[in-house]
Amino acid sequence: LGIPSYTSDRYYETTPVGVVNGLAYNTRGGSTLYIESTAEKLVSSLSGPPKEPSLKTTGKLGEVMSESSTIAYTFAKNFLYTLDPKNTFFHTHSIHLHSPQGDQAKEGPSAGVTMATSLLSLALNEPVLNDLGMTGELTITGKVITIGGVKEKTIAAKRSGLKSIIIPTNNQTSFEELPDYIKNGIDVKYAKEYKDVFEIAFPNKKYLLENLKN
Amino acid sequence: LGIPSYTSDRYYETTPVGVVNGLAYNTRGGSTLYIESTAEKLVSSLSGPPKEPSLKTTGKLGEVMSESSTIAYTFAKNFLYTLDPKNTFFHTHSIHLHSPQGDQAKEGPSAGVTMATSLLSLALNEPVLNDLGMTGELTITGKVITIGGVKEKTIAAKRSGLKSIIIPTNNQTSFEELPDYIKNGIDVKYAKEYKDVFEIAFPNKKYLLENLKN
Amino acid sequence: LGIPSYTSDRYYETTPVGVVNGLAYNTRGGSTLYIESTAEKLVSSLSGPPKEPSLKTTGKLGEVMSESSTIAYTFAKNFLYTLDPKNTFFHTHSIHLHSPQGDQAKEGPSAGVTMATSLLSLALNEPVLNDLGMTGELTITGKVITIGGVKEKTIAAKRSGLKSIIIPTNNQTSFEELPDYIKNGIDVKYAKEYKDVFEIAFPNKKYLLENLKN
Repeated sequence: LGIPSYTSDRYYETTPVGVVNGLAYNTRGGSTLYIESTAEKLVSSLSGPPKEPSLKTTGKLGEVMSESSTIAYTFAKNFLYTLDPKNTFFHTHSIHLHSPQGDQAKEGPSAGVTMATSLLSLALNEPVLNDLGMTGELTITGKVITIGGVKEKTIAAKRSGLKSIIIPTNNQTSFEELPDYIKNGIDVKYAKEYKDVFEIAFPNKKYLLENLKN
Repeated sequence: LGIPSYTSDRYYETTPVGVVNGLAYNTRGGSTLYIESTAEKLVSSLSGPPKEPSLKTTGKLGEVMSESSTIAYTFAKNFLYTLDPKNTFFHTHSIHLHSPQGDQAKEGPSAGVTMATSLLSLALNEPVLNDLGMTGELTITGKVITIGGVKEKTIAAKRSGLKSIIIPTNNQTSFEELPDYIKNGIDVKYAKEYKDVFEIAFPNKKYLLENLKN
Repeated sequence: LGIPSYTSDRYYETTPVGVVNGLAYNTRGGSTLYIESTAEKLVSSLSGPPKEPSLKTTGKLGEVMSESSTIAYTFAKNFLYTLDPKNTFFHTHSIHLHSPQGDQAKEGPSAGVTMATSLLSLALNEPVLNDLGMTGELTITGKVITIGGVKEKTIAAKRSGLKSIIIPTNNQTSFEELPDYIKNGIDVKYAKEYKDVFEIAFPNKKYLLENLKN
């Protein structure tokens, strides 16, 4: 009953730059799930064509989750350009994004915001707020849209000792309808657009959001 | 009964540049479905070959819908060249076209006009008319041809609060034969060629159509 | 009875440059079927290698029909070079060849002459004779060889309002054996080699055939 197919030992007490807690669920229950990104600087060579920056993923990601990583990458590049046009990180580095417990197949679109946050953490060299988990499908323009498994994900977040979670605004009703014993003890925040996630995840970088022209 | 396989929360109140409302249907009913495109400027490098502009797609698009995106891309490039030969957008940018709700398989040729409109919106930096939905297969020369599910798509458009829809002229009879309670409350426009779509979707750019030589 | 699997609304009253009426059939009957080609000029860049011209196809073409497009492309390039060595169209443009009604699987070798004619129409910037349909397998050296479904294709051509059709000389007997009510009202021409097709399809360019050395 409620046994998640992949459980999370919480192997980061505080998540370093590039690592973000996601929330996953399937028919057997919910779990937390790290997204980790690292960068490799592109070496310029005197001869030959310059290397192309690219995104590589591992962690047994299914088709939809692989597409999510592509969407997160496109979005993160555009969003960073809007926040800080001088930041050339994504032009000068290739990225490797991984989701640990590499033998567990992972699928679904709800890690979109988690992946984008992992990439931006790396590009800004800024770790995310501690003990924060997040879930939400991300569209390529930065909308955060509905996900499933709000109940299972909330239980998993508490079991892993997270203190706050970000879920899509469209899921607010399904969260509020949960029984109190599930809702209590965790701070929930709602995101309608990715900038709402950013503001919560990177409190020290919030000032960059002033560069968004809405 | 008439439950669509993918429903649309309408997460855009007004669609930004690059985002267009499509109309889809399957045996379980109709739905609206966004097409979103974003661009990435190709960075010029001092040495090495210039990057090739390209189109990348995500959103669990089936084989036919992937081909539609290719057709829309070829068409949009040619059409823009005819409208405004000085616009080099498609030579200097790579495009990422996405259809949200990434875990829902999407198929069929009827998003052709929607995709072309999304690409042209981006290239012209002009949002489409508000509360407009559209459906139609696009041929590579710009003909708008028959689609299925006129009834289901009309119902879905109204449910999503759209005020007008564009459908192929070849589907005019099937629309007119719908019962009044379905037809009422939505403004229908017919398109035989893509320029008919353009004229409705981009009222501020209508003057560009004078450059078409028919 | 005789219901084609893909029907043709005849969406071109007169076919523009690059568009040709083909004739198809399967066990359920015959139909007309457009082949459309458009070109994209290869942009020269100051640095870097020039782009390679190529042929891209869409329209749910099966394996054999995809091979036909390759054969048509190879043949059209060679044939044009023989007719007019100064015409560099195929060196300076990439081609996108499409067959509309993108959700209908299409298969078979009999669109060979149609595809070659579509490509040559584009390269010569010359539309084909109006109200003309054609069917024939093309060999890479330009032979037009036997196809199936002469009866179904003739019926479909008449239903679509075509006034003349080109079929392989090898199919002459099967046409002549058709009952009069099918044969009447359409002008049939026979082709043994591609130049026979060319002569009929491009009356204004017939003089170019003098450059063929047989």
